[in-house]
Amino acid sequence: MSSQRPSAVPAAVVDLVGFAAYSELAEFGLLATRSVDAPDLAVRQALADGADRALDRERAVLAVVEGSAAEVMAPFADALTEFDTRTRTDDWAEGVLKGVLGHGVAQDFCRALAAGVEDPVGKKLREVLDRPAPGPAAGAEAGADAEAIEVLGRLGAGDEVLASRLALWGRRVVGEALSLVTVLLDQHPGLDELAARAPGAHGADEVEPDGARTWLVARLTAEHTRRMDRLRLAA
Amino acid sequence: MSSQRPSAVPAAVVDLVGFAAYSELAEFGLLATRSVDAPDLAVRQALADGADRALDRERAVLAVVEGSAAEVMAPFADALTEFDTRTRTDDWAEGVLKGVLGHGVAQDFCRALAAGVEDPVGKKLREVLDRPAPGPAAGAEAGADAEAIEVLGRLGAGDEVLASRLALWGRRVVGEALSLVTVLLDQHPGLDELAARAPGAHGADEVEPDGARTWLVARLTAEHTRRMDRLRLAA
Repeated sequence: MSSQRPSAVPAAVVDLVGFAAYSELAEFGLLATRSVDAPDLAVRQALADGADRALDRERAVLAVVEGSAAEVMAPFADALTEFDTRTRTDDWAEGVLKGVLGHGVAQDFCRALAAGVEDPVGKKLREVLDRPAPGPAAGAEAGADAEAIEVLGRLGAGDEVLASRLALWGRRVVGEALSLVTVLLDQHPGLDELAARAPGAHGADEVEPDGARTWLVARLTAEHTRRMDRLRLAA
Repeated sequence: MSSQRPSAVPAAVVDLVGFAAYSELAEFGLLATRSVDAPDLAVRQALADGADRALDRERAVLAVVEGSAAEVMAPFADALTEFDTRTRTDDWAEGVLKGVLGHGVAQDFCRALAAGVEDPVGKKLREVLDRPAPGPAAGAEAGADAEAIEVLGRLGAGDEVLASRLALWGRRVVGEALSLVTVLLDQHPGLDELAARAPGAHGADEVEPDGARTWLVARLTAEHTRRMDRLRLAA
């Protein structure tokens, strides 16, 4: 399908690919920035490797459609600015957690919307989005964050005060991430169209048109809670 | 040679590999950090791609010896801290130039020392260090910096005031980088041993033992001047 013409891919799907790719580029930046000021060389390397994999994922998702990276991602160039400003932190562990949680919600959002995309593009897109992470924190959910999740798990396990501070921080980050979802759907009719189809594609009982967003936010919240559990942090 | 045992590689060469790998990891961090606050999406992507290639180069050079990345790089974990502190800048273009020039000196240093390493390890090491960069700024000298060089060339060409500010900044960065070379040779006898062999390996006329450092600094300065020329900045 590498010869897939842009015209053959619905505009809504190009939007989804653009946002998915952009969120991987953002994740690259978050992990790389925390790699630079990591507490030791092993963690520095681990987060750099995660950042590297975020770029691999970005390239893989962009390959689903034609058009240059900058072109496809352009509509989302400012999509994360407000989220980023509202969750700015000078604390290293909070910065890593912001990456894991914010990117986690973005990935879950993309996967939920990809379920309603018709084959063959839908199949290819889902393969890329569900690609499992290698290593000790393996699993599709971990995406580029496998190393970051492992690092946070270790930090939190040894420090109850830190763990409860991170739990509090996680609630703030996920609140901002879920607000962003609403903004994205308001500003990108293509994404809204896919969101409306998402509950049905996931086999949910009939959902009223207005109910799709509620369904989506509930789903993202549940997945966030599972992610916090895996991090052994209170959701 | 992938089964090369650590014991078969002289300690001095393990030092050189450790420093070469660490300087690529540092370059990853510099490029990635400037990717995050890049002025537009195309530049952001370009610097992220460069950062990615720095990690590829790091892995390739580490593969020349056995031992974990953290183990081989450990002796250099603080090697760039002082350089980094002395060349801290909030200016975006200065930050990019710092990466290109600092990493350029580090690469030239590693290549100069690798010339005296005996085959087969020497051959493999030189192949990795001389690996050319792809794309518009192609060439072995560009290493991971191809995109950064291209971005700086464009910025400087359109803005004389910026170009002369960057030229001044470049002199400061290279001064610090050359000081660092002396510190490295003082602190790592293995590197000093390779440096002593470097003039002969490059076919220089007989150099007195104490003269090897002078030869090395002269060579690095000349290569820095050529790099500034390519950037169209006054050295």
